[in-house]
Amino acid sequence: MSQVPKPITTPPDSAELSERITRVRALMGKEGLDYYVCFDPVNVYYLTNFANNVHERPFILIIGKTGAPVMLCPLLEASHVRARARCDLEYVTYYEFPAPAGQNWFDLYATLIPAGARVGLEEAMPVGIYKRTPGTVVVTDIIDEARLVKTDYEIGRSVHAAAVVNFGHAKLLEITRPGVLEIAIYGEVVRAMMGKVLTEIPEANLIVSRFVGAVWPPSISHDPHRVPTPYLPMEDGGPHVSIVTAQADGYGMEMERSFFLGSVPEQARKPFAVMMEARALAYELAKPGAVLSEIDRRVRQVIIDAGYEQYILHRTGHGLGITGHEAPYLALGDDRTLVPGMLISIEPGIYIPGAGGFRHSDSVLITDTGNVRLTEAPDTLEQLTITA
Amino acid sequence: MSQVPKPITTPPDSAELSERITRVRALMGKEGLDYYVCFDPVNVYYLTNFANNVHERPFILIIGKTGAPVMLCPLLEASHVRARARCDLEYVTYYEFPAPAGQNWFDLYATLIPAGARVGLEEAMPVGIYKRTPGTVVVTDIIDEARLVKTDYEIGRSVHAAAVVNFGHAKLLEITRPGVLEIAIYGEVVRAMMGKVLTEIPEANLIVSRFVGAVWPPSISHDPHRVPTPYLPMEDGGPHVSIVTAQADGYGMEMERSFFLGSVPEQARKPFAVMMEARALAYELAKPGAVLSEIDRRVRQVIIDAGYEQYILHRTGHGLGITGHEAPYLALGDDRTLVPGMLISIEPGIYIPGAGGFRHSDSVLITDTGNVRLTEAPDTLEQLTITA
Repeated sequence: MSQVPKPITTPPDSAELSERITRVRALMGKEGLDYYVCFDPVNVYYLTNFANNVHERPFILIIGKTGAPVMLCPLLEASHVRARARCDLEYVTYYEFPAPAGQNWFDLYATLIPAGARVGLEEAMPVGIYKRTPGTVVVTDIIDEARLVKTDYEIGRSVHAAAVVNFGHAKLLEITRPGVLEIAIYGEVVRAMMGKVLTEIPEANLIVSRFVGAVWPPSISHDPHRVPTPYLPMEDGGPHVSIVTAQADGYGMEMERSFFLGSVPEQARKPFAVMMEARALAYELAKPGAVLSEIDRRVRQVIIDAGYEQYILHRTGHGLGITGHEAPYLALGDDRTLVPGMLISIEPGIYIPGAGGFRHSDSVLITDTGNVRLTEAPDTLEQLTITA
Repeated sequence: MSQVPKPITTPPDSAELSERITRVRALMGKEGLDYYVCFDPVNVYYLTNFANNVHERPFILIIGKTGAPVMLCPLLEASHVRARARCDLEYVTYYEFPAPAGQNWFDLYATLIPAGARVGLEEAMPVGIYKRTPGTVVVTDIIDEARLVKTDYEIGRSVHAAAVVNFGHAKLLEITRPGVLEIAIYGEVVRAMMGKVLTEIPEANLIVSRFVGAVWPPSISHDPHRVPTPYLPMEDGGPHVSIVTAQADGYGMEMERSFFLGSVPEQARKPFAVMMEARALAYELAKPGAVLSEIDRRVRQVIIDAGYEQYILHRTGHGLGITGHEAPYLALGDDRTLVPGMLISIEPGIYIPGAGGFRHSDSVLITDTGNVRLTEAPDTLEQLTITA
């Protein structure tokens, strides 16, 4: 597989979701767990296709060794869950929070798991739920592990999300000119991507449809997580750094580029070239069997050798899927290996105060023999110097 | 105070944030805590004015008995925190996640609190952080308690957010007609509210600026949390139920109305009238000193007496502030009392399959003598039957 797979825009069927539960149960078996309990909306969505926003009325998914998982949820949400879930669930509902003594979610929760059971919980589980979990509790992120390697379905959805990002990024490069304000770019790019999703997925779930289309102009591009203010104007020169992300009906991809308006300052040429060299090495190394920490170490070394060690602010990349940041990580502390079916960002960056930020990010699928980029945009200095 | 206070659109000053920390420290003293640790972005925002989205690189705020709180955060976010925080903080940064052994966030975290300390944590704290917290840990939501009664500043910000909601809701009633699609309403109303915020708060923080403008048409209005699909059309008659919410640069308000397009089905008249009667009683009861569970009990009784007990799906209301749902709750299980400075929704509802949903929600400030509504829209059956 060295070509981009076909996009998918339909909801998951029950076979797809069964496969995901089967993965979780296999890991439960390995850890000797009788139950696994999820609260993190991301994990609940992964296993059921139902998305929720966290508030004081919890949705708790309880997975036993067999049978339909139990969804413990507020009464007024049950039909919402039924409308979106694409798997069999057993429903247990509570009326409200807070309820009179004996009728709260935690009173019901206590009856759903036997005291003698061995129960796994996510690291993200709120301590308030952890403390009320019956049985012997083990904190273990087995769903993160189940989510590491994507199914063909997830890859197809991600290919679609990448097409949305490509569309948004093309719009961004078309409209970003000196003097244009951040909010105008944001509005146009977000609208373009949302419009594409809404025409291609008419039943899209807006709870898991989020779009960002922003540019860090040269005044802040050295500071990659300094969120721009709405009226920040674009400037002559660069580097400007784009960030375009789409969670398109549940599946997330990203693309980022360092680019220039009109001309390239002399001081930007070397860091741009070093970033491109580091990036090229990352693509070369991103193959099945490669150790993630080793990729990050070697990519960093390119930047260090150029004299820019103090300008590295982050790892080479991170996993992608139903979230924009997830395991695995192309980071010094992640000694796992790449496996076909993983989705990662490749985005080594250099951030020099006074000179700006140098980072291209793409969303990349690990294939049987190497990798294939799902996001596409110009990437050379010539292509990214916009003079029209 | 029976008039709506003046709106505020400026960021909090350090005196405002000191007052909030002082409240937390007073509660720490009562519980004998040496430290309180926050992770929930809502609480971190409340105490610092810095907003973040949760991902695998945690932001942890550690509050001791005296001195500046410690912000443990990723290296690449430190300048973002500095750009938005409006209080003194001591910064401790870690490079990445995952990092090589000894350099992870939890290695640093372990050095920031002495082993002999008594440490309070939120219920929402992820168990992964809880398990790595040094000292003797107590789970206690004292920040929720600190947030119960709003400062004058918070009230002023909320008055502004309510004006945004009022503007959005007027737009919604103006454009909602039979055949208009959900997504068209959503797009116009969200754009109207965002435009208002961006002209009135040029430096608005988009991470905490979110808007919803939606209508549940009669086909689903009996099902209050069944999120509409994008191409759902509005219909003749009703009830349609609007939901307009704004988190306007950090402060959240809501307004909802049951309304009719063209004509009122006969079967809708009684439940509308019962809802209005329940609502009127809630306003009458919502005064300082009133017990929340008692308000809910009496308001429910109006609906029960009309023969609609099985059509009650939720409590009478909930607190509002920097979130759209927070303590206190006008619910059977909340035996706290109302206090001047609390912000609550008042929204008793009746949901009848085949007849629809009947609910008006407003955002209301508890004053020294009673309450004052911050959101304003037509509310009678005549006003809410739109024939133009």
